[in-house]
Amino acid sequence: MSSNQAQREVSWQRGRVRPEGAKRLEILSAATARFGRDGYEDTKWADIAADVGVGPTALYHYFESKQHCLYVIVDHAIEEFQERFTTITAGRPDHRDGLVAVLHDYFDLSERDVLRNRLLVAEQGLLSSRGASPQEEQARQAARARSRDLEFVWASFLAQAMQQHAIPENDPRLLTRAVLGLYNSVWTWYRPHGIIALDRVAEVFIGRILAMIGAPSSPR
Amino acid sequence: MSSNQAQREVSWQRGRVRPEGAKRLEILSAATARFGRDGYEDTKWADIAADVGVGPTALYHYFESKQHCLYVIVDHAIEEFQERFTTITAGRPDHRDGLVAVLHDYFDLSERDVLRNRLLVAEQGLLSSRGASPQEEQARQAARARSRDLEFVWASFLAQAMQQHAIPENDPRLLTRAVLGLYNSVWTWYRPHGIIALDRVAEVFIGRILAMIGAPSSPR
Repeated sequence: MSSNQAQREVSWQRGRVRPEGAKRLEILSAATARFGRDGYEDTKWADIAADVGVGPTALYHYFESKQHCLYVIVDHAIEEFQERFTTITAGRPDHRDGLVAVLHDYFDLSERDVLRNRLLVAEQGLLSSRGASPQEEQARQAARARSRDLEFVWASFLAQAMQQHAIPENDPRLLTRAVLGLYNSVWTWYRPHGIIALDRVAEVFIGRILAMIGAPSSPR
Repeated sequence: MSSNQAQREVSWQRGRVRPEGAKRLEILSAATARFGRDGYEDTKWADIAADVGVGPTALYHYFESKQHCLYVIVDHAIEEFQERFTTITAGRPDHRDGLVAVLHDYFDLSERDVLRNRLLVAEQGLLSSRGASPQEEQARQAARARSRDLEFVWASFLAQAMQQHAIPENDPRLLTRAVLGLYNSVWTWYRPHGIIALDRVAEVFIGRILAMIGAPSSPR
């Protein structure tokens, strides 16, 4: 785990302990690991209960269903992507520097982070179909709103970068979808401990994303 | 439907009538429409049977399960992407011209094609888990092999383009994944009759893919 990853873990847990409760966080963490490793469909709710040492009935105190739990995981993950974006770009007045720093951060991932990204991408279709109950539907709507927020902060940033001539003019919303789409695509095929190292993937994909935005990494 | 789309439809159907049989093709077409419109999970096998006017039992003469049918749809779709790629690039000795023509063709889609692309992207995770029976598993392996073939023809083409200095040097396999990943990402959010027209999406994304490859569409 890099020092960035460890720091993120600590500050993320700390920020969450009050509103979420320790047991709820523990369930989310166990579910993320199970879903990411064994697949969402193949994971049984009872296995997650066993992982955190509570009975399946007690689990329903925290989440109404496996799907409800997934929506909350997606919500938290997107919130984290947004916080990282905002923190990193805030400290860098030069938009191009900010962009490069965010992209490096987005590829600075622990194995747990990679599994979570795989889960997010594999199950993003679930966000399109209505939740089975009011509570599920509320969690789904929250995750969708979070996703729109993330797109909004990216698009606003890219629009500003265009105004400052740091990158060429384009449609900021479609460019955002291209950037996030290209980033997300990695987690459909990248496997930890596979034949291609994450460092190598990061090098090629950060270069390609910058070229796509029109801010190539080679000296201008 | 553009003349390209109509021509493709005819030649695709013609090429397939012998090995597949008309009824099997009809089932594949009905299933693609259902899966694309209502979602794979929410589609009942019996609805597809009703669409093509056979009983659910007769349907099993053609496909062992809904999943088996999905694997064959994916296999055929990827085969079509590969055929289109090969046909278009074969007639164009200049690699950059070939690339631009393929990308325009890949966005020249009927509504049915868009629904199929959505299905392919939404259900690509299913290709990772083993089929429940030997026949399912065989169809899954065939679809996976087809997907590797498509990546191989793209990577070979990009490697040749690099050798001819038509595009900058890079890892051809990772660049292929970036191109196909960016293309596939469109079908996670694009909706026919939505607020963004397909022409507009094509314009922006073809431009971004070319920039990413290092072959920008503006005069060099």
